[in-house]
Amino acid sequence: MRALVRDPDKERDFQPEPGVLTTDPSAIRDDPSIGVVAEVMGGIEPAGGYVLDLLAVGKPVVTANKQLVAQRGAELFAAAAAGGVQLRFEASVCAAIPVIKVLREALVVTNVHRVLGIVNGTTNFILTEMETGSTFAEALAEAQRRGFAEADPTDDVSGADAAAKMAILATVAFGSRVTLADVDWQGIEGITPAHVAAGRQLEMAVRLVGAATLVEGKLDVRVRPSLVDRHHPLAAVEGAFNAVMLQGDAIREITLEGPGAGGIETASAVVADMVSVIGTTGTGFLHNDACWRTLERLPPGELRSPFYVHLEVDDRPGVLSHVARRLAAHDVSVARLIQAPVEHGAVLHVVLHETPQRAVDNALAEIVQLPEVHARPSVLPVVSDRGVVELGWA
Amino acid sequence: MRALVRDPDKERDFQPEPGVLTTDPSAIRDDPSIGVVAEVMGGIEPAGGYVLDLLAVGKPVVTANKQLVAQRGAELFAAAAAGGVQLRFEASVCAAIPVIKVLREALVVTNVHRVLGIVNGTTNFILTEMETGSTFAEALAEAQRRGFAEADPTDDVSGADAAAKMAILATVAFGSRVTLADVDWQGIEGITPAHVAAGRQLEMAVRLVGAATLVEGKLDVRVRPSLVDRHHPLAAVEGAFNAVMLQGDAIREITLEGPGAGGIETASAVVADMVSVIGTTGTGFLHNDACWRTLERLPPGELRSPFYVHLEVDDRPGVLSHVARRLAAHDVSVARLIQAPVEHGAVLHVVLHETPQRAVDNALAEIVQLPEVHARPSVLPVVSDRGVVELGWA
Repeated sequence: MRALVRDPDKERDFQPEPGVLTTDPSAIRDDPSIGVVAEVMGGIEPAGGYVLDLLAVGKPVVTANKQLVAQRGAELFAAAAAGGVQLRFEASVCAAIPVIKVLREALVVTNVHRVLGIVNGTTNFILTEMETGSTFAEALAEAQRRGFAEADPTDDVSGADAAAKMAILATVAFGSRVTLADVDWQGIEGITPAHVAAGRQLEMAVRLVGAATLVEGKLDVRVRPSLVDRHHPLAAVEGAFNAVMLQGDAIREITLEGPGAGGIETASAVVADMVSVIGTTGTGFLHNDACWRTLERLPPGELRSPFYVHLEVDDRPGVLSHVARRLAAHDVSVARLIQAPVEHGAVLHVVLHETPQRAVDNALAEIVQLPEVHARPSVLPVVSDRGVVELGWA
Repeated sequence: MRALVRDPDKERDFQPEPGVLTTDPSAIRDDPSIGVVAEVMGGIEPAGGYVLDLLAVGKPVVTANKQLVAQRGAELFAAAAAGGVQLRFEASVCAAIPVIKVLREALVVTNVHRVLGIVNGTTNFILTEMETGSTFAEALAEAQRRGFAEADPTDDVSGADAAAKMAILATVAFGSRVTLADVDWQGIEGITPAHVAAGRQLEMAVRLVGAATLVEGKLDVRVRPSLVDRHHPLAAVEGAFNAVMLQGDAIREITLEGPGAGGIETASAVVADMVSVIGTTGTGFLHNDACWRTLERLPPGELRSPFYVHLEVDDRPGVLSHVARRLAAHDVSVARLIQAPVEHGAVLHVVLHETPQRAVDNALAEIVQLPEVHARPSVLPVVSDRGVVELGWA
């Protein structure tokens, strides 16, 4: 057993056997007694180069490196195939929640066509915290105080971290090489207490939801703050927990929930992957590189979803009919509408039936031109039980 | 490929190749070209004898047979070990929800010490339906009308079906041979709208919860109608869905949710198991018979839990203090109490802090002797976020 470290003389909580620590990656690569390597360095380089070297000489690799798999997965998978060895990466997504294993080994006869995930614990903690009345800034400060958010929380709150995880999940679920560059993401910086309150009124929760969808053989992967119907399993995910829902032909939907981060949790996934490598080496299991397929991307405007639109307007006669006429002109149908007075006007909470993103964008481009409309409306996808809201009129 | 059937001439939706159907089990057992067998007959016999024969000659078996695994698992596992082959049974518990694979292959370095499950869809449908105001009889009739309950629903509503599944889950989670005879179960026949209403008032949902627990190396497996705190993942499980929560050292808790029954869902699990057998044969993976251990049973009264007690009493001064005194005498501490008037008296909703079952039983044995108490109280375990209620006084 060897361990690559930067500084062998650093003080450690444990005392490794003499000769275990090394600063030379080739000492691991060229040691014939080493049968499997775990990469837990993080970062794209030098970790990526080391992993490629190991795969090239036929050493299976287990990695917890989310950015490496999300950004250079195609290259890594090709190297693993060429080397005739396994690359496993359970710990790179949601720590100990075994969603990669379930996708690759349990749902083998299921065409998974949709993956919905709350895959970032920091933002879920913040959004849950905002349900108690906090502002975004207050909730973020609380997340930092409790160790759920970094001093620089950009990666989490911007949705970039969730986007990397969704790229990996889409890669495995759809058997296609999906990278971070294929994901369209938005973060939760713009979520205000008004959105959270609107959600409560509509019996929905604001969550940062990653959605990877196959639509007639075309791929769409996005991360968006969304309104989740309270009967949907993702609405019940609270605090820093993660959950992933897999929807497919033979399974309807299976949801896995748990802590999506943590040192021990990540280590548990790394060791389980190592055991799985040892338990399946030489059988051809998971050497399914021939199944990779190239998927065209769905033009973003074509993705259909129900939506919630938050619109601040003057409280005067006619505004509702003006808004309704623009929506109807673009075939956008209203499922539910609540008008509430606010200072200097009114707010319209509009839930739209499933409709292409483009139709909503086009209707709103006209609606913002109306003199009665105060500011840019905010639009959140709605996640409901079956991807379709059946709410009826309020 | 061969398929054992009762009547080869029966009309079928598909046309099997000539020679595939057989009525002779030895035609499968003795065919050297058959590498793995799926048992989907159901029933203890003749299925059990067939499976034992197959394992004895070294053919791996995949089974969907819950009662067989729950009642004769020890014998089957011994036969698989003796034959040097795998026995897989994912489809025997919760259909396509891959909880067996997750326990055996993903949580390999986690000491799972507790499994909580909603593992019967019929009873969960009935209990969810009762939340809309139905009686048990009405909800059962609706479940039968919608095909979620059999004409004879005894196995489901009595908790026996859930008990068999909990025996299998405990077997895998704890690495011990737990059979149906080790499980203590109660059904939902006694659940009334009053329990459901009390749950709502306490922000809890009534669910039939199976709980397998390791307490200091001793085993307890039981199925009980329970009150589940609304922030607990199991409270969000609605309709005919199933969910299993695994609690362990390195993972905190992981919950898997999905449809727990259905023909296609079960077939998906059976085929996935066959693929796993093929993908791991010859590697020694899962041939971990040496890890089986014998666990002593925890005396039932020693299991600690928070409890809900439903007590119908005369509405007159002193009754509350009489009840409180008996509880205190047995060191049973009240977390929350609500008294509500009902016809001819009052009902006390009492939530108790975590306490041994025996203490509650002993206190209630005295309480039922009080002249002010109308009928036998009902007692439901409470499932809250961390197994402990922290509710404070109402």
